[in-house]
Amino acid sequence: MGKKGKSALHVSDGVNQPPSISDDAVEKYKKLQKKNLSSEDYFSGIRDGNRIILSQAITVIESSLPEHQILAREIIEKCLPFSGESIRLGITGVPGVGKSTFIESLGKFITRRENKLAVLAIDPSSNRSKGSILGDKTRMEELSADPNAFIRPSPSAGSLGGVARKTRESIILCESAGFDVIFIETVGVGQSEVAVHSMVDFFLLLMLAGAGDELQGIKRGIMEMADAIAITKADGANAKVTGRAKSEYQNALHLFPPTSSGWIPHVKTCSALTHEGIEDILITIDEYCELTKRNDYFWNRRKEQAKYWMYETIDESLKNDFYLHHKIKEVLPRYEKKVIEKDQSPFSAAKDLLDRYNQ
Amino acid sequence: MGKKGKSALHVSDGVNQPPSISDDAVEKYKKLQKKNLSSEDYFSGIRDGNRIILSQAITVIESSLPEHQILAREIIEKCLPFSGESIRLGITGVPGVGKSTFIESLGKFITRRENKLAVLAIDPSSNRSKGSILGDKTRMEELSADPNAFIRPSPSAGSLGGVARKTRESIILCESAGFDVIFIETVGVGQSEVAVHSMVDFFLLLMLAGAGDELQGIKRGIMEMADAIAITKADGANAKVTGRAKSEYQNALHLFPPTSSGWIPHVKTCSALTHEGIEDILITIDEYCELTKRNDYFWNRRKEQAKYWMYETIDESLKNDFYLHHKIKEVLPRYEKKVIEKDQSPFSAAKDLLDRYNQ
Repeated sequence: MGKKGKSALHVSDGVNQPPSISDDAVEKYKKLQKKNLSSEDYFSGIRDGNRIILSQAITVIESSLPEHQILAREIIEKCLPFSGESIRLGITGVPGVGKSTFIESLGKFITRRENKLAVLAIDPSSNRSKGSILGDKTRMEELSADPNAFIRPSPSAGSLGGVARKTRESIILCESAGFDVIFIETVGVGQSEVAVHSMVDFFLLLMLAGAGDELQGIKRGIMEMADAIAITKADGANAKVTGRAKSEYQNALHLFPPTSSGWIPHVKTCSALTHEGIEDILITIDEYCELTKRNDYFWNRRKEQAKYWMYETIDESLKNDFYLHHKIKEVLPRYEKKVIEKDQSPFSAAKDLLDRYNQ
Repeated sequence: MGKKGKSALHVSDGVNQPPSISDDAVEKYKKLQKKNLSSEDYFSGIRDGNRIILSQAITVIESSLPEHQILAREIIEKCLPFSGESIRLGITGVPGVGKSTFIESLGKFITRRENKLAVLAIDPSSNRSKGSILGDKTRMEELSADPNAFIRPSPSAGSLGGVARKTRESIILCESAGFDVIFIETVGVGQSEVAVHSMVDFFLLLMLAGAGDELQGIKRGIMEMADAIAITKADGANAKVTGRAKSEYQNALHLFPPTSSGWIPHVKTCSALTHEGIEDILITIDEYCELTKRNDYFWNRRKEQAKYWMYETIDESLKNDFYLHHKIKEVLPRYEKKVIEKDQSPFSAAKDLLDRYNQ
């Protein structure tokens, strides 16, 4: 980890100022440089494993100020050659599944074996939902105090695309700081799982045993993205029902089409209370990495993910330019209403709006 | 069916010539009008249930000639107020599942109860795949000869977006011609199922019983879109294994999160050979429609689909303008290569391309 050389996100050509940023922002940025840390300061701090500097750098990434965006770009460029060597693990599960205690328990196993762990979160809806994800660091008391762990609360709310980009860039910084296991946490109820799935190597779904009512929150389609399902709270009186749930899910996963990785998704039970089954999940992840690195799926997938993010960034930018354009913004609700109320066909409405935009 | 009045795709304002079509095309179109059928001729032929005219009109929709596109737009506008009253049914399954015989058997039950059935197909990849879908009408001998059925082979290959649009417009024409049950067939191996799911009321997945190898072709995620799974070839020596498969799938579907329609997906076995279980599937579809029309899901979903197609059409057009622009086309492979080979970060590459495009 952290070796110099070509890595997943190496940049060869330096772009110092994205052309779309105003002269005013450049001025402010220069002032900022005089008063504050330069990108070189951030970079060397990150590489030294200074987690205060790392935290500040992520704050710069998350900032929407244009002068911060210039600085962020420089920091990321410097860090890129030193990123890409970690295992990126997506963890999702509805509130109530015991995600924090699970992450704390799994995290301790990871730091005990001399790995360095960073925990990030994607939750564009955190300003709306009650159970803010990672919002309360004290939920992970042990891990917060662990010198081998770094816990970073969710970026402040924004568009999913923006939040996802910031998270992906935070991964780069964490990897450059020497973290070799990265958790990306989501709540499993929104659109964010597709974004997470597109930036992790392994996708772990936490589930509760039971009749199905507690699954209400999980979005359809998420189960088929899972590389492993962990049934939580397998302790005490609950052990019997979790065992039954395990074999049910195992049977269900057998009916799914095989994954292109050659990996058959595993179902595990575990208890964050007794720590039973937790290490087994770690072994599963190791097995997955061994298999997929051997058959090159691991590296091919990283390449596909890089491509995906290039196209995703372009597509989101094209859509933003269109939908936020004043010519469109002022009439879009009217057209949407016409289409919903069957006063105009979707294709005809789309054509009208596109003509308006291109005029 | 076919009642005059507000329907799902009613258009109130007439748009005769989309502005982006050249004067040359308009000239050719005027000549075409003199020699051939006018949009009014097509419209009245369709409303009379003349299936030769209907076929010709769909060919006009599928044509990429600009003069045909003008004509198609006029025909669709005229038909729109008379569309929207059918049940639209998506049917998917890999080659070998017995899709043609299933459609023939289910189709006969439908036409026998005085419904009029149109069978369309979405298969943008038909030029590549061997088993071209609906390509050989003789595969459905009985249904082809049925006066209450209309079978239309897949449109010639094109982009998924284009093929999907053409299929959705063909639905409008078929509904205006009095067809009150529409099948949309796909092969279940590509991206097209999401498109189909976005234009049908009910999504039926055909599956073979067995150990799992035969599912290789089905794309992950499709199972969770199904409103019903029908296990085919439940006859003779196969009956026992299909029965077992049925209960396995039933157990599996119970583990899925509930659908927003309030409907619990059904699993059925059937034989297109003995016709056993086929009528039962028809009853299931009826039950679904009754439930979802009662709780308004049916109509709300149609509205959502209309909105979806407006946004989908806009997004596809924005992407086409970008990716087919000569400024982008000539450098895109280079940027993609840089990103794959880790010479540039995805976000930085996206930014460069967007700057190039917007200059």
